[in-house]
Amino acid sequence: MQMGWKRIEEIVDRALAEDVGWGDVTTEALVPAELTGRASFVAKAHGILAGVEVARLVFHRVDPAVQFDITITDGNSIQPGDAVAVVEGKVASILKAERTALNFLQRLSGIATETNRYVEVVKGLGSRIVDTRKTTPGLRILEKYAVRVGGGHNHRLNLGDGVLIKDNHLAALRSRGLAMKDIISRARERAPFNLKVEVEVRTAQEAVEAVEVGADIVMLDNMGLEEMRQAVLLVKGRALIEASGGITLDNVRRVAETGVDLISIGALTHSVRSLDISLEM
Amino acid sequence: MQMGWKRIEEIVDRALAEDVGWGDVTTEALVPAELTGRASFVAKAHGILAGVEVARLVFHRVDPAVQFDITITDGNSIQPGDAVAVVEGKVASILKAERTALNFLQRLSGIATETNRYVEVVKGLGSRIVDTRKTTPGLRILEKYAVRVGGGHNHRLNLGDGVLIKDNHLAALRSRGLAMKDIISRARERAPFNLKVEVEVRTAQEAVEAVEVGADIVMLDNMGLEEMRQAVLLVKGRALIEASGGITLDNVRRVAETGVDLISIGALTHSVRSLDISLEM
Amino acid sequence: MQMGWKRIEEIVDRALAEDVGWGDVTTEALVPAELTGRASFVAKAHGILAGVEVARLVFHRVDPAVQFDITITDGNSIQPGDAVAVVEGKVASILKAERTALNFLQRLSGIATETNRYVEVVKGLGSRIVDTRKTTPGLRILEKYAVRVGGGHNHRLNLGDGVLIKDNHLAALRSRGLAMKDIISRARERAPFNLKVEVEVRTAQEAVEAVEVGADIVMLDNMGLEEMRQAVLLVKGRALIEASGGITLDNVRRVAETGVDLISIGALTHSVRSLDISLEM
Amino acid sequence: MQMGWKRIEEIVDRALAEDVGWGDVTTEALVPAELTGRASFVAKAHGILAGVEVARLVFHRVDPAVQFDITITDGNSIQPGDAVAVVEGKVASILKAERTALNFLQRLSGIATETNRYVEVVKGLGSRIVDTRKTTPGLRILEKYAVRVGGGHNHRLNLGDGVLIKDNHLAALRSRGLAMKDIISRARERAPFNLKVEVEVRTAQEAVEAVEVGADIVMLDNMGLEEMRQAVLLVKGRALIEASGGITLDNVRRVAETGVDLISIGALTHSVRSLDISLEM
Amino acid sequence: MQMGWKRIEEIVDRALAEDVGWGDVTTEALVPAELTGRASFVAKAHGILAGVEVARLVFHRVDPAVQFDITITDGNSIQPGDAVAVVEGKVASILKAERTALNFLQRLSGIATETNRYVEVVKGLGSRIVDTRKTTPGLRILEKYAVRVGGGHNHRLNLGDGVLIKDNHLAALRSRGLAMKDIISRARERAPFNLKVEVEVRTAQEAVEAVEVGADIVMLDNMGLEEMRQAVLLVKGRALIEASGGITLDNVRRVAETGVDLISIGALTHSVRSLDISLEM
Amino acid sequence: MQMGWKRIEEIVDRALAEDVGWGDVTTEALVPAELTGRASFVAKAHGILAGVEVARLVFHRVDPAVQFDITITDGNSIQPGDAVAVVEGKVASILKAERTALNFLQRLSGIATETNRYVEVVKGLGSRIVDTRKTTPGLRILEKYAVRVGGGHNHRLNLGDGVLIKDNHLAALRSRGLAMKDIISRARERAPFNLKVEVEVRTAQEAVEAVEVGADIVMLDNMGLEEMRQAVLLVKGRALIEASGGITLDNVRRVAETGVDLISIGALTHSVRSLDISLEM
Repeated sequence: MQMGWKRIEEIVDRALAEDVGWGDVTTEALVPAELTGRASFVAKAHGILAGVEVARLVFHRVDPAVQFDITITDGNSIQPGDAVAVVEGKVASILKAERTALNFLQRLSGIATETNRYVEVVKGLGSRIVDTRKTTPGLRILEKYAVRVGGGHNHRLNLGDGVLIKDNHLAALRSRGLAMKDIISRARERAPFNLKVEVEVRTAQEAVEAVEVGADIVMLDNMGLEEMRQAVLLVKGRALIEASGGITLDNVRRVAETGVDLISIGALTHSVRSLDISLEM
Repeated sequence: MQMGWKRIEEIVDRALAEDVGWGDVTTEALVPAELTGRASFVAKAHGILAGVEVARLVFHRVDPAVQFDITITDGNSIQPGDAVAVVEGKVASILKAERTALNFLQRLSGIATETNRYVEVVKGLGSRIVDTRKTTPGLRILEKYAVRVGGGHNHRLNLGDGVLIKDNHLAALRSRGLAMKDIISRARERAPFNLKVEVEVRTAQEAVEAVEVGADIVMLDNMGLEEMRQAVLLVKGRALIEASGGITLDNVRRVAETGVDLISIGALTHSVRSLDISLEM
Repeated sequence: MQMGWKRIEEIVDRALAEDVGWGDVTTEALVPAELTGRASFVAKAHGILAGVEVARLVFHRVDPAVQFDITITDGNSIQPGDAVAVVEGKVASILKAERTALNFLQRLSGIATETNRYVEVVKGLGSRIVDTRKTTPGLRILEKYAVRVGGGHNHRLNLGDGVLIKDNHLAALRSRGLAMKDIISRARERAPFNLKVEVEVRTAQEAVEAVEVGADIVMLDNMGLEEMRQAVLLVKGRALIEASGGITLDNVRRVAETGVDLISIGALTHSVRSLDISLEM
Repeated sequence: MQMGWKRIEEIVDRALAEDVGWGDVTTEALVPAELTGRASFVAKAHGILAGVEVARLVFHRVDPAVQFDITITDGNSIQPGDAVAVVEGKVASILKAERTALNFLQRLSGIATETNRYVEVVKGLGSRIVDTRKTTPGLRILEKYAVRVGGGHNHRLNLGDGVLIKDNHLAALRSRGLAMKDIISRARERAPFNLKVEVEVRTAQEAVEAVEVGADIVMLDNMGLEEMRQAVLLVKGRALIEASGGITLDNVRRVAETGVDLISIGALTHSVRSLDISLEM
Repeated sequence: MQMGWKRIEEIVDRALAEDVGWGDVTTEALVPAELTGRASFVAKAHGILAGVEVARLVFHRVDPAVQFDITITDGNSIQPGDAVAVVEGKVASILKAERTALNFLQRLSGIATETNRYVEVVKGLGSRIVDTRKTTPGLRILEKYAVRVGGGHNHRLNLGDGVLIKDNHLAALRSRGLAMKDIISRARERAPFNLKVEVEVRTAQEAVEAVEVGADIVMLDNMGLEEMRQAVLLVKGRALIEASGGITLDNVRRVAETGVDLISIGALTHSVRSLDISLEM
Repeated sequence: MQMGWKRIEEIVDRALAEDVGWGDVTTEALVPAELTGRASFVAKAHGILAGVEVARLVFHRVDPAVQFDITITDGNSIQPGDAVAVVEGKVASILKAERTALNFLQRLSGIATETNRYVEVVKGLGSRIVDTRKTTPGLRILEKYAVRVGGGHNHRLNLGDGVLIKDNHLAALRSRGLAMKDIISRARERAPFNLKVEVEVRTAQEAVEAVEVGADIVMLDNMGLEEMRQAVLLVKGRALIEASGGITLDNVRRVAETGVDLISIGALTHSVRSLDISLEM
């Protein structure tokens, strides 16, 4: 799993601090410290698994002595009844880690599953499904990972690693008399030279214009299918084209058929349905 | 807004660090530092507003000089087109804070809205809608706040501030020969004396038994409506009764009609649909 | 030892940062890095041991290679001359950890010892000795642990995990026209449902009144023995009764004899006398 | 108040996090957010005040809008009934900050008061009363401040800002064949040149020997009064002399009369009795 | 100054913690707390000023009441004797902040000055002077800022915001049978789509080859001038060209004359000579 | 290596966070996760090695499984071509740690090498070469370590562990009518008794005067050689003498020949030239 592991440790530690508080008063009162047991993560629904190593990390941050064996790795599809992983160790540790581990695993698998639905629908066409910055505050790195696990691709991680000139930028600059040409050449000159310049456009005509003055990527914002097709035709491979806005499982294939390179979907991360997975002792 | 404000600042700061990274390369390249502007948060859907003060905090952490005027406060219902708040200040600051502020506001309003649907459905009956520990890692305090804004109530915040003896505890202890009576009296003796003792039960009979040996609250886990009614009847107000598991908008009123005191619903927080709100310059 | 171990690590790390600063200039100048040695923690006074695992943690945070063997575990009574633990490893590491380890061990043992004196005095009667929030800033979790080691019980950990309506709350609310009944029913309605409601009262009469309108626990504040007896009589087991204020080793047995359930004593933690333990090379 | 203010803020924030937890459930349930009030810190015992600015900081970290007026400043002696400070603002804020503020104020005043007792007893003689590293973990900077407020002086803050060759160092080095002379010259050569070299000695003869080979300070460890007098006589002002070990209010004047420069007392900080101060609404 | 201000605050706070330690013992012993004064930052050498707002931040973190008036702003050239800024406030605060402020100001001005020398030498030619990742650990954001102040441009900030396929990558991949074409197309496919792909090459021929299979930028590593000219000729503007390795003030103009777009110089930040600026009371 | 290891871990972690960001996009896109390799740190210049254990720490923080074998330890002189250390493990880990490890190693070796040049020049004379507080913000502990590795000695670490009365202190105090005698006796009385008192002086006469009223060390600030000789003569070993200001490799031997005890040189750390060391796969 290629992620910034140290930052994930911090996320996990905070989640545990939040869920365990000053200690598990029920377990400490009732369960003998030395009692050991065994439990399985069992899928209760169809989907794509994501986050099982995060779940393992949760257990190991609570108690490094817990044995956590992964049966199914991230990216595989799961069916109700599948045993995803088996955990063995002190019952007190298992009970302390359980909820936090499930909260990560269910959410990340939910994202991977939803992403994968889109990826399957556009299969065979050239478009990539990409995410947005509409992620849950504090979990971006994990949610973007889950998108990749589901077969999607990542848009920029944050405001510092991608140039994206949005309508609000254009409006502010045009009101000061700058044309698209000026705006893009200013971006090329002042922004880090290793970043591509992406511009949000409203019409096919604007798309072409942006590409001709140097845009590396154009984002077609809430454009109709016909207009998109037009944009693809006119840009002729001189830049990447991203479709954005109002895209659902119902219309995504038609969007892909226009020939756009990238289709970005906020709902992959802003409206997640947890995938049902439970821990059975 | 009664929340642990300092912890929310930390959550906001982490979200900004995550979204802004080392700086907004687009805005820094293009937007003159001194340019000022004005933007409105506008509702695009029906729902209950939650998190507008968190949105304000996001702006103030980015730039304390930004003016952020709240028109509609948390807990009010909003309609498409409603202006929720107006922000005024440096355009560069507004663009930097925008996405993070929306990510909080949309998610929290989504939770409040969904919670409120349940609350409305059970209106007039005595049951409270309560949340669970199935929250997004790192956001529990905010999500539980949104549940309250929507008219719901909070279950324990974490493992340290509530005694809840779940099936896994019971299984582990019964396998060592302890009866319900022993288990509950051990909990009363060893857990902090100011916490009520709650026990998860599977049958009405078990519910009564638990109450008779000292449980303060019984949680009816995935019980049928008839069995719930029975439990309410037998317990006769000697303890609080919580219904849990498989509860949806479709069946929640029937559950409430059984007379249970509390109805807990994981989906309030584990499967959130963002409420559509946007920032218009 | 059932404690929030991670938080204790943070406490220990801060204590070491404070005591070691940028390095032990004396030891670094004089003691060869490779020199190894052996030292014993030796009791110099009678008491109850508490914190020996914290002392071990101190050594392991300084140098994980140090061998730390515990001879006597927390909760046992110790006599002058008893070897509590033996530490073996680099002399430089031992000298660096020594003072911090002792500062924890002596203080926690001091608390356990004092608590135990109270516990012994009330032996055979039904009252529990409990602590308060009058702990040393930053050490609450450890000091409350030491109270348990000494045979005492813990009152609420902080303002978030227990409802305790004190005289200042009552005064503020009564000045707004609320009666005890209103106040308690408001607390039951708005505070987390899994927390018991405790109220501070000045007379036996007030105690009964509070219980009759729903208090789960009444705290008898600075009440005379006769008044306490009266309160116990009138409440008749319908709620827990806590005695508080002005309780010393001299009068604690008489207080217990009144039949109160809980006796809380601030001095257990606000006025600690370190138990004399030293490290001998 | 000359202290590392930023570090004290951290100490205060941690203390508040510990005491307030996720919020004050009682106050939030009962006290209207807008209700304001006024309270006084009132002394209940005789002593020396210390920490009133720390108490103010506690209130301001909870709520910057609280008005906190100091009537008596640190270092002044107080009598039962004296109003030390008056606080005015939201009742909810006052109740949240109360316990933590008192925990600091009572403890620091306790230390200043006890220190001052020693200082008064040796008045007129040339000896300074100094503290040790036997402080409460996490509070050293504050406790050493309280010692100064009480008229005492500070020994080194930590292992990094003072060279003190203790018996354990000597034992380790002598076992490798080094004489006092070698040890001290090694310390002078290798330790930071701006730190004085202090050595612990057991006899007057050893004291003289240490001074003659270059010690700047000698610490007389658990020495009898006659032996101390002898050491003072022999050293003849060529080095500072510190008496340490077994010093109480009963014998401290006699120790001072021997002519030692410094008298260090661990009990100033390891066995503190809180000074009784309360907050009255 | 467009920088991630919050992170700079953290850098400044750490620098102060490091330099002030637990307090300024000299100033606290000698300088009356209420004594105020005035001091000027005076240039002692020719150069380009950078970091004066960081210096102001240092003073404000020590004492927000200090008045800090900037006379010359970043990016201006300074002469010996120029007063850069004037600071006024408590003498104790000024003395505490002085060294840390100067350490930042001298170093950043040193970098801006050295960068500007290169920029001046290549003036009129099309090449940009760019920095590298050979920065001082912990100060990258500030050092890259100083490069910009000096007229240079920034290469990628870190490994996450730029694709740069170095010789070590090529070696590892070629040993597994991949050709340049495979490598670049794999990078385009798997790396974030908004980042340009840069490749390190050794010959003009390799440069062309890389561009033809899709490289956006080629880095000519330690290439001779003739070879560079050849590369520029063959690439014909289809990609950006960066010269790197062994570039000094003596040869940088000849490198620029080859027509490369970017000239990267590690010494801008790895071997800094502080610019002499002092604070005069 | 005797350093505050934990603080160095923090420095290393921050440096990695800064350099790796959210992940190494190039390596993650191209290098198979399981690919292993081997690389050597090879010297490219003459000098004194410093920081090889810090380089190891960098690798171990990235990936504890990397094998890092040190061939040459800190303090040894190195020649071009010398293999300093060999690292073996996952190629992805090696590439991620490479730059940060080199940034530390080159800088620290640069400092040790420069320090050693001074030490060699004054060899045979009694003067010690010492550093100053003119270090790189955030790296003081490491830079002072490198000075020791190069044979130099450390001046005070920060404002808290050494009393140094500078011209600015003297000016402020003399303007209030205090004489040198008053100033020094006030310092002895109020500053921690275990710290020596150092005073900055401008003339030999002032030096003697300071020593006679109790200064332990005098710092001759920017004094001529003849004046220094005079100061040494007059002080006659009654205090340590430090020369400071304007000292270079060209004049340092003549300064040492005057008989001063300490020669402090800011350029050791404020103007560092990295020592060329590279990592070869």
